[in-house]
Amino acid sequence: MAKVITPRSEDYSRWYTDVVTQSQMADYSPVKGCMVIRPLGYAVWEAIQKELDTRFKETGHQNAYFPLFIPESYLHKEAQHVEGFAPECAVVTHGGGSKLEEPLVVRPTSETIIYAMYSKWIRSYRDLPVLINQWANVVRWEMRTRLFLRTTEFLWQEGHTAHATEAEAEEEVLKILEIYRTFAEEQMAMPVYTGLKTASEKFAGALRTYCIEALMQDGKALQAGTSHNLGQNFSRAFDVKFQTREGEWAHVWQTSWGVSTRLIGALVMAHADDNGLVLPPRLAPTQVVIVPIWKSDDEKARISEAAALAVEELKPAFRVRADLRDEVSPGWKFNEWELKGVPLRLEIGPKDLEKDQFMAVRRMDRRKTPVPRGSLRGGVAGLLEEIQKDLLEKGRAFLRANTRDATDYAVFKTQLDEVGGFFRAHWCGSPDCEKRIKDETKATIRCIPLEGNREAGRCLLCGSQSEQWVYFARAY
Amino acid sequence: MAKVITPRSEDYSRWYTDVVTQSQMADYSPVKGCMVIRPLGYAVWEAIQKELDTRFKETGHQNAYFPLFIPESYLHKEAQHVEGFAPECAVVTHGGGSKLEEPLVVRPTSETIIYAMYSKWIRSYRDLPVLINQWANVVRWEMRTRLFLRTTEFLWQEGHTAHATEAEAEEEVLKILEIYRTFAEEQMAMPVYTGLKTASEKFAGALRTYCIEALMQDGKALQAGTSHNLGQNFSRAFDVKFQTREGEWAHVWQTSWGVSTRLIGALVMAHADDNGLVLPPRLAPTQVVIVPIWKSDDEKARISEAAALAVEELKPAFRVRADLRDEVSPGWKFNEWELKGVPLRLEIGPKDLEKDQFMAVRRMDRRKTPVPRGSLRGGVAGLLEEIQKDLLEKGRAFLRANTRDATDYAVFKTQLDEVGGFFRAHWCGSPDCEKRIKDETKATIRCIPLEGNREAGRCLLCGSQSEQWVYFARAY
Repeated sequence: MAKVITPRSEDYSRWYTDVVTQSQMADYSPVKGCMVIRPLGYAVWEAIQKELDTRFKETGHQNAYFPLFIPESYLHKEAQHVEGFAPECAVVTHGGGSKLEEPLVVRPTSETIIYAMYSKWIRSYRDLPVLINQWANVVRWEMRTRLFLRTTEFLWQEGHTAHATEAEAEEEVLKILEIYRTFAEEQMAMPVYTGLKTASEKFAGALRTYCIEALMQDGKALQAGTSHNLGQNFSRAFDVKFQTREGEWAHVWQTSWGVSTRLIGALVMAHADDNGLVLPPRLAPTQVVIVPIWKSDDEKARISEAAALAVEELKPAFRVRADLRDEVSPGWKFNEWELKGVPLRLEIGPKDLEKDQFMAVRRMDRRKTPVPRGSLRGGVAGLLEEIQKDLLEKGRAFLRANTRDATDYAVFKTQLDEVGGFFRAHWCGSPDCEKRIKDETKATIRCIPLEGNREAGRCLLCGSQSEQWVYFARAY
Repeated sequence: MAKVITPRSEDYSRWYTDVVTQSQMADYSPVKGCMVIRPLGYAVWEAIQKELDTRFKETGHQNAYFPLFIPESYLHKEAQHVEGFAPECAVVTHGGGSKLEEPLVVRPTSETIIYAMYSKWIRSYRDLPVLINQWANVVRWEMRTRLFLRTTEFLWQEGHTAHATEAEAEEEVLKILEIYRTFAEEQMAMPVYTGLKTASEKFAGALRTYCIEALMQDGKALQAGTSHNLGQNFSRAFDVKFQTREGEWAHVWQTSWGVSTRLIGALVMAHADDNGLVLPPRLAPTQVVIVPIWKSDDEKARISEAAALAVEELKPAFRVRADLRDEVSPGWKFNEWELKGVPLRLEIGPKDLEKDQFMAVRRMDRRKTPVPRGSLRGGVAGLLEEIQKDLLEKGRAFLRANTRDATDYAVFKTQLDEVGGFFRAHWCGSPDCEKRIKDETKATIRCIPLEGNREAGRCLLCGSQSEQWVYFARAY
């Protein structure tokens, strides 16, 4: 541990970069805007993928793979879509040594290329619904890189479905939103608000965008997943039609939805501390690390044996490793595994051996619990479950404590600067009020909750009548 | 089944395309050279990935992810490498609305960008070995597309390792070659020859390239995987150095290795027939399909129930589905699942129900075996194992029957045209002889076996003394 992590209190943004690079989750690449996801970061992504992929498949979705390149003209077929994405595109102009007749865009998202295929594949109501997901890389040009949170290239999944009716498409969009919400809470231990984006914040080409929004430790919100009801916007642009049971031709109703490697950034910002990463047990590539403590050679022999036995016993049920290195001290090892966010450390020294126990130490708060060697597997299972639960509870308490009612615009502005967080505030529904608040405070409407927010009130900015409150926050 | 598959005897190349597109494994995309991998094809790729990934991890490798884009200047750092790859590159010249200062190449392979990172990460012998693999898309410009076999964009894995000694690097290269060989045989039921590439056929930048080579039904060889010993070529070009135990600075020894979605094309060509795909059980997304046969409503009720029960019983152990559709006949279903290559079909009609059995039909040869309902799970397990084994045996017999000794150049040329296959032939080792044979016959040296080929003989072309025979074939 030659380097020291900048404390959050000193510089939150540097703290984040220090944690990500020093834990070896990711690194900057020589290509501007692009990151390298190192083995620890990629293992977290694999854990995220595995869990989400299972949930997508359980709900009837299949994976497929569509081309990286999109003809520039395709992007132009849906008016809002091109306006939203064209400025961010990387463009291939040469291939195989020659200039291309038509430039190709590196996909910023795949609606256009996928729906061109759907228009070929879908003919009849019998072909519906089409429930396809893709795991892929996408590119959106960025000048100011932030590892995981804002990079030119990132990894994601994008679901693309086609349905016979508007109601089915809406059902799909909400089903996915619920998968995202439960995944964030159950696996990432990260509570979120869910709701609808305003017209100005929705996906370019969507009818409606639903989202999950999380709160980071610095009081800024982070959009962690989106689920779009595309209506018939793209099916009209790409002529995706089917013959109904009654023999009529109709355009399909579509959805698209995605989460990305941004989730890893959210995971870091949600749980990490000044000593490094804090990973929730369900997504941690290593859940348990065993660190032996010895002085004499005799102690070393007996303690290494106990550590090796423990690994054997725990391996079938947990992702476990023992750190038996000789060249570094136990304290050095503690620091290293704390930096890398391993949820549970099992220490074993001569006294523990005497008492026939391991000393378990939780990464999240260093709380110690002796675990008898005779009930190691059950003890570890219980501790990991408890950590997962406690991380979520801690996140919930933080979210509650940092969600405030805002009724006075001046107070709202002060609190935004001083403590941040989410603000429940009434909004009249006017894009002008939304824009002025954004321009003046950098706070945006993160989402309009789907329920529980219908009540009479007065718009935070203009004071005119409002029938609903929404969540405001500054965001990543 | 509106369309008919062109028989192999009529047009082998069209047969292949028909099988791939009609089974819905893949489709052509509107972007020249790029394919769409449809859910059936992608599920096969997922099965391949899962199995290989497990083997890589068991041998100590970790996954990571490096940028899609490579600065053009990086490609130029290794002289042979740029010569090999520059002509095939797609080039990004514009990003975010502006012309780039330095064009970016879309990775055709990632040695250069990965080793630029290694030079930053590796400092000491303690950092070695680095054993990293990446699952990614790559782009090599192609004008004549062949689904899975030759496409501008394809999916693959690329391993990139760094070692302290030459011996360790060589051990790694051979370990991976063995993983590829056993994977091809055990999972794909596709026997292969293994060996070394000649200087003219090796990877651009490698010291030595090892490969696995399979034989397709039309008598052409297909390179199915490569494992490269890079020596210190790239570590010198990218200055990847480490301090040895003794405190000296030394360049690392490197390897890279990969297989791609090309394997899916090999799988099709190895086993499919004029009725469609034939998938080996271990890689088949659906291993068992149950097709009920009924006439009356009463039969339908009892038989659907038996089918549903069978699905419940088999589901925990196999990838199984029942086709209970009403709108198509059993015969139509047989054709569809044969087209899609499902290894085992379980038919159940009124007579089978009376006998309390299913009639199992093997896709590979339509051989029928009654399976008592009372021992369904064991019966299906046995049949699937047998199919896997028989497919491999069939492949082995085909490979044996189509590997010939060639001692006479004229006979060799005739046999190449008439029956194809592999030819064991002596080669003097001269690049001139190799080139002339290639120019005159389109046959190349597929590999120099690692053992069993040392014997005195005379070069197939020039007749001068040779100490080894090699495998010649025309190839994809």
